[in-house]
Amino acid sequence: MTDDITPEQVEREQQLTQTVLRSFDQAADPRLREILQSLTAHLHAFIRDTRLTEEEWNAGIAFLTDVGHTTTDWRQEFVLLSDVLGASMQVIGVNNAAYGDATEATVFGPFFVDDAPVIDHGGDMAFGAAGEPCWVSGSVTDISGRPLPGARIEVWEADDEGLYDVQYDDGRTAARAHLFADEAGQYRFWGLTPTPYPIPDDGPVGRMLRAVGRSPMRASHLHFMVTAPGYRRLVTHIFVRGDEIGWKDSVFGVKESLIKDFLRHDSGDVTPDGRDVGQRGWSEVRFDIVMAPSDPHHVR
Amino acid sequence: MTDDITPEQVEREQQLTQTVLRSFDQAADPRLREILQSLTAHLHAFIRDTRLTEEEWNAGIAFLTDVGHTTTDWRQEFVLLSDVLGASMQVIGVNNAAYGDATEATVFGPFFVDDAPVIDHGGDMAFGAAGEPCWVSGSVTDISGRPLPGARIEVWEADDEGLYDVQYDDGRTAARAHLFADEAGQYRFWGLTPTPYPIPDDGPVGRMLRAVGRSPMRASHLHFMVTAPGYRRLVTHIFVRGDEIGWKDSVFGVKESLIKDFLRHDSGDVTPDGRDVGQRGWSEVRFDIVMAPSDPHHVR
Repeated sequence: MTDDITPEQVEREQQLTQTVLRSFDQAADPRLREILQSLTAHLHAFIRDTRLTEEEWNAGIAFLTDVGHTTTDWRQEFVLLSDVLGASMQVIGVNNAAYGDATEATVFGPFFVDDAPVIDHGGDMAFGAAGEPCWVSGSVTDISGRPLPGARIEVWEADDEGLYDVQYDDGRTAARAHLFADEAGQYRFWGLTPTPYPIPDDGPVGRMLRAVGRSPMRASHLHFMVTAPGYRRLVTHIFVRGDEIGWKDSVFGVKESLIKDFLRHDSGDVTPDGRDVGQRGWSEVRFDIVMAPSDPHHVR
Repeated sequence: MTDDITPEQVEREQQLTQTVLRSFDQAADPRLREILQSLTAHLHAFIRDTRLTEEEWNAGIAFLTDVGHTTTDWRQEFVLLSDVLGASMQVIGVNNAAYGDATEATVFGPFFVDDAPVIDHGGDMAFGAAGEPCWVSGSVTDISGRPLPGARIEVWEADDEGLYDVQYDDGRTAARAHLFADEAGQYRFWGLTPTPYPIPDDGPVGRMLRAVGRSPMRASHLHFMVTAPGYRRLVTHIFVRGDEIGWKDSVFGVKESLIKDFLRHDSGDVTPDGRDVGQRGWSEVRFDIVMAPSDPHHVR
C-alpha cells in the first residue's frame, strides 16, 4: 500500500508527528513526557506503517470502547488485552531481568485480590473450591541459598472448572490465601492441582482471538507472589509438565524454568502431612523460590 | 535507563515479541493480521524503549479504564484521546494525500450526528443556537474547476458558549444541518461565527492535558463533510484568521489552507440575502471546496 507515497507526503506525516511530540515539551514531569512522547511516536508509526484507513480507525475506537464497557470492578478487559498482545509479559520481562538463578517472573493476571486470608503451614488455601488436592512445598532463599524466613507468599488459582472465586456469583473467597516462610525459609500448603481454562472470552478480547484463530486457553498454573524486604517482588506461576496447553498459553506466560513435575498419587496413598483427602487422587509439587535483590547494583 | 541491559536480556525481549507476532500467523484475514502484528511490534517497542515499570503499566491500565468508563453514547473519550495524541490527524493525513488543489482534510471530531436536518440555500443551520450570524458561501468543484451540482454538504459547529447540541440537556438539534450544491455547484447558508472552545476536559484526557501543561482549547472552526459520487469524502473545517488559539489547537487540526478571512460587519450593514439579523453584528466567509477523485489512479 505504500508504493505511491510521495516524498512530500512522507515529509508531511513526519512533521505532524514532530509537532505532536513538541506539544509535550512543557510537561513538568520528565518521565511522563518521555512516556507520552514514546507512545506518540510509536502510535503514529503504527498508523503510517499500516496506512490505517479511517474505517479501520473507527473499528479500533469501537473496539476500545467495547473493552472499556466490558471492564468492571471484577472484570479487567484491558489487562486481558495487554496479556493476549504479550504486552504484559514484555513489561514483566523488562522489569525482571535475569539475575543469577533467581526464579523467573510471569504475568500477574487480572484475578489477584488483596487481603486474601492467611493460612498456617500445611493449611488448605482451596477453602472448598472444587479440584484435586495438591500438596505444594518448597523454600524461599536468596541466590546464595540463604533462607528468607518470614517471606510473604500469596497464592491463588482457578478451580477445576476454570473459575477464580471473583468469578463466582456468591462472593465467597476460595483458592486464594497467603502464608509466611518459616524460620528455615520453608513453606508448605494444600492447594488444587492446576487445570487449563480459557481466559474470559465472552468479550471483545475473546472475539479478537477468534477472529485471528487463536485459542483463549491458558496453560494450567498456580499463581505466586512473593515479597521479602530488600528483595525484588516476585510475581510468577508454576506450570504443570505435560500440560495439554503448555507453550500455546494464550498470554505467553510459560517459561521452561517454571514448568514443574506434579507427582500424581492414587486415593490410597498416604499424604505428606497425614491428611485424609477422602476417596480422591492427589498430587504433590515442589517449588523452591529464589529471590533477586531489589537493587542488584547495591549487592554486586 | 538502558545502560545495564545485557545482550541476553535484549535477545529475550526480542524473542517474546517474535513469539507474539507468530501467534497471529493463522489469522484468516491478512489485513487484520497485518494490523495486529504492526500494533504488537510497536506496543512492545514502546515498552522496551521506555523500560516501562509495572507501576506505570498499572497506571496505563487505570487510565484506559477511566477513558472507557467516561465514554458514553454521547461522549467519546477514546476519540478525544486519539485527537490530542495527534493520531486522528495522522489517520486523516494518511488517507487524504494531497491531490492537486483539492481542499485539505482535518479531524472529524466526536460531535457529528447522522440525519441532521436539511436546509435550503440561504437557510439557517443555527436553529436558534447562540452566536453571531455568519453568512457562508462558496462552490463545490473538482480540481479542474468543474462544478459538482448536488454535492452533499454537512455542516456542524459549537455555539458561542462552546457547546454542540449533543452537549445540551434538552436533546434539541441546533447548529447542524445539511444542504446540496445547486445546479451551478454553489452553496450558501447562515451559520454562526466560530468561537474557540475547550474539548471536554473534565475526564481523563483533560487531566492528561493538565499534567503535561497543554491547553484543551480548540481553534475556532466550522465543520464540513462533503460527499459526491466518484469523489473522495472530504471531512474538514474552516478556521478563522487571527483566531486567538490558532496553531495551538489542542487536536493539531489547523492547516494554512483552511484558515479563512471572516469579514466582520456592524449591525447596520445590509446582509447578502437581505435578511434582518436584528441588532447584531454579523460576519461572512467564502469557502470554495475542491474535491479529489475517490480513486486518483483511475483519473491520472
